[in-house]
Amino acid sequence: MDKQPNRTGKRPSIRRLPMYLKTLRQFHNAGREIVSSAHLARELNVPQINVKKDLEITGATGKTGVGYMVKSLIYHIESFLGWNNTTDAFLVGAGNLGQALMGYQGFQQHGLRITAAFDTDIALIGKQIDKIPVFPLNKLTNLASRMHVHLAILTVPALCAQDVCEQLVKADIRGIWNFTSEPLKVPPTVIVHQEDLTAGLAELSVRIKQLLTEENQL
Amino acid sequence: MDKQPNRTGKRPSIRRLPMYLKTLRQFHNAGREIVSSAHLARELNVPQINVKKDLEITGATGKTGVGYMVKSLIYHIESFLGWNNTTDAFLVGAGNLGQALMGYQGFQQHGLRITAAFDTDIALIGKQIDKIPVFPLNKLTNLASRMHVHLAILTVPALCAQDVCEQLVKADIRGIWNFTSEPLKVPPTVIVHQEDLTAGLAELSVRIKQLLTEENQL
Repeated sequence: MDKQPNRTGKRPSIRRLPMYLKTLRQFHNAGREIVSSAHLARELNVPQINVKKDLEITGATGKTGVGYMVKSLIYHIESFLGWNNTTDAFLVGAGNLGQALMGYQGFQQHGLRITAAFDTDIALIGKQIDKIPVFPLNKLTNLASRMHVHLAILTVPALCAQDVCEQLVKADIRGIWNFTSEPLKVPPTVIVHQEDLTAGLAELSVRIKQLLTEENQL
Repeated sequence: MDKQPNRTGKRPSIRRLPMYLKTLRQFHNAGREIVSSAHLARELNVPQINVKKDLEITGATGKTGVGYMVKSLIYHIESFLGWNNTTDAFLVGAGNLGQALMGYQGFQQHGLRITAAFDTDIALIGKQIDKIPVFPLNKLTNLASRMHVHLAILTVPALCAQDVCEQLVKADIRGIWNFTSEPLKVPPTVIVHQEDLTAGLAELSVRIKQLLTEENQL
């Protein structure tokens, strides 16, 4: 019987999957066919027991004493994340952060294609940024339905985030990647993923405090 | 005996602390003096058992059946993160992402002050962006030692990330917040925190896949 993947998986495991994928693709390009969890653990600096658990959620199975088939593992991770199909997304708010995301090379590789950007700034409307056209915000509903787009990246100023969010919901956007600091209120049929830069800062702060404390104890 | 805080804490707990802090500050500003873990759990949509574990790492203790003192809890979280003192940081790479971070209002509140930015683009050098002066990259070593700065935010193109990283290490920078996709090689005396946007995208992708699967099963 096939092992059924655990449908949900733990957040830290899910967050680590792109890192495995990147390394596995490098292995694949270098011609490597088999990799052990011990090898991945060393390469990625993750405890071996976690490597096994992380990969288990994708439904991938390794062979004891041998390892995983690299190609099969890539397939399982991509399928689990839905990154084997490209998802189209709109970007709303083409300011500095929006433009940085439009220029981010990594997304395409991870199954995300930004097909259009929206803004209210007439200096931006009509331009192309990294080959992505910028449209006026009031064209969003119309274009979302015509282009069958259900995912939006929100990079507007925090003050207008909820307003724009309501327009996204009306446009039948079902997933919002929220880069603003404003917590969004949405109906239960819409998913918001809150991107929180301060979480990374918290991790870094604690690690630096530890490093300095250890040095002072020497 | 005072309860000793767990020095390290788990990554997900540490990453959630800024969210507690934000809510607690709102409670404090609204005049609330006591808060229960059940209330925080509801407010932040985190299981109550996790709330208790998260707060425990800061050394904060609640009273059974009563809750936590809001002010004391804020103090414990800020101390644990080292956010009661402001840390100065340099930003290296004043492109779109760098400028977005310079304009990010949240950092100051979280104990991080960007005191200078560095770039090689002569169109940017000498300018002020959100009141932060942009200097030529070759002034970094000198200024880091004069201004006693040991933290850097790295937002340069991936291709030159390792090169710039080596300049940072020479300038006695001890913590690097790496926004590039390039994994950095550093000596053991330097901490790198890798900011990985694809981790957030992985989480969002899995949740959207679940939502759509559930809908198709209805």
